[in-house]
Amino acid sequence: MDLAFVLYPRMTALDLVGPYEVLAHQPGVTAHFVAETTEPVVTDAGLVIVPTTTFAALDRADVIVVPGSSDYEGVLAAGVVARWLREVHPKATWTTSVCTGSTLLADAGVLTGRPATTHWAVRELLGRLGAEVRSERVVRDGDVITAAGVSAGIDMALTLVGLIWGDRVAMASQLAIEYDPEPPYDAGSPESAPPEVVAAVLGKV
Amino acid sequence: MDLAFVLYPRMTALDLVGPYEVLAHQPGVTAHFVAETTEPVVTDAGLVIVPTTTFAALDRADVIVVPGSSDYEGVLAAGVVARWLREVHPKATWTTSVCTGSTLLADAGVLTGRPATTHWAVRELLGRLGAEVRSERVVRDGDVITAAGVSAGIDMALTLVGLIWGDRVAMASQLAIEYDPEPPYDAGSPESAPPEVVAAVLGKV
Repeated sequence: MDLAFVLYPRMTALDLVGPYEVLAHQPGVTAHFVAETTEPVVTDAGLVIVPTTTFAALDRADVIVVPGSSDYEGVLAAGVVARWLREVHPKATWTTSVCTGSTLLADAGVLTGRPATTHWAVRELLGRLGAEVRSERVVRDGDVITAAGVSAGIDMALTLVGLIWGDRVAMASQLAIEYDPEPPYDAGSPESAPPEVVAAVLGKV
Repeated sequence: MDLAFVLYPRMTALDLVGPYEVLAHQPGVTAHFVAETTEPVVTDAGLVIVPTTTFAALDRADVIVVPGSSDYEGVLAAGVVARWLREVHPKATWTTSVCTGSTLLADAGVLTGRPATTHWAVRELLGRLGAEVRSERVVRDGDVITAAGVSAGIDMALTLVGLIWGDRVAMASQLAIEYDPEPPYDAGSPESAPPEVVAAVLGKV
């Protein structure tokens, strides 16, 4: 089974590495890290990841994982990722996104009229791009699974492992990464965070 | 403020990228990705990360983050990371570990007689290495903070951001990564996972 983890400049590294840690250890998978070129990709805060293949070379995958970026407008404007998605999504078994990666799926026409979720700060934009926006953490619609912001990619990937390999395998993956979360604050959603914290984050997004 | 994210072959990528996503966006920080050489590092399931500096070149940091690996015995035997930790820990403000990275801190003498946590599957080993093992998700003892397995690095990093920059900044970081976890299963700890799932994971660790 071929897994395609999409890379592009300034992407949010955790959007990709959360699902990677859950999916890439499964039996019989081959993890591809695909970008426009094989040049190392500098992600959001300086972490540099090396692609293993290019959009031109990889014309199909069974599972596609598209991460987001705080520079989602720039990535949408570049159009490179969405162009590749238009080609490979029809051949994929599962197409997934994390955070603002959903806007790239939408730009590729994958989410038109379909329920989807995204980072809380870009729900309005995703709606303008044609999706039926939900505020759930993980939304599955047929062969497309979208996740909310950044850390939601872990929940999305565990859900996908359950769908592909079954609940027991997914539970083993959850246990292996000791995913028994204890956030030190109750501030993980705009509904639970103090208003001034929400405003501070919106000022940066 | 200099952040040193330690890299080594077969390390668990999420152990590093969880804390990276929380810490490296803070104001005034410089993120260093330090390894034995500047050659790209192949992590646990194929993700390749490029170091920005070497153990020989980086002789201090304000915050040190040490990830774990399922090959923790090999990493302990190599001794390279522990040797560097013996040099830099005394000069650091905060020394932290995620998952089995705790065994490297212990091997460097950082945890001798101190409370610490680690991946649930290596608690006994950490005790043999001299630490007072706890089963908490995040354990702080003075200037040392240890996290449980893999995903616990996110909770550890948010705790550390609160200690350094305050609760409001930490809550903003939690909201920015939308860390409002909803694991699809209740299997994130050996206490909650079905016995056969625990056995299956132990067979692989």
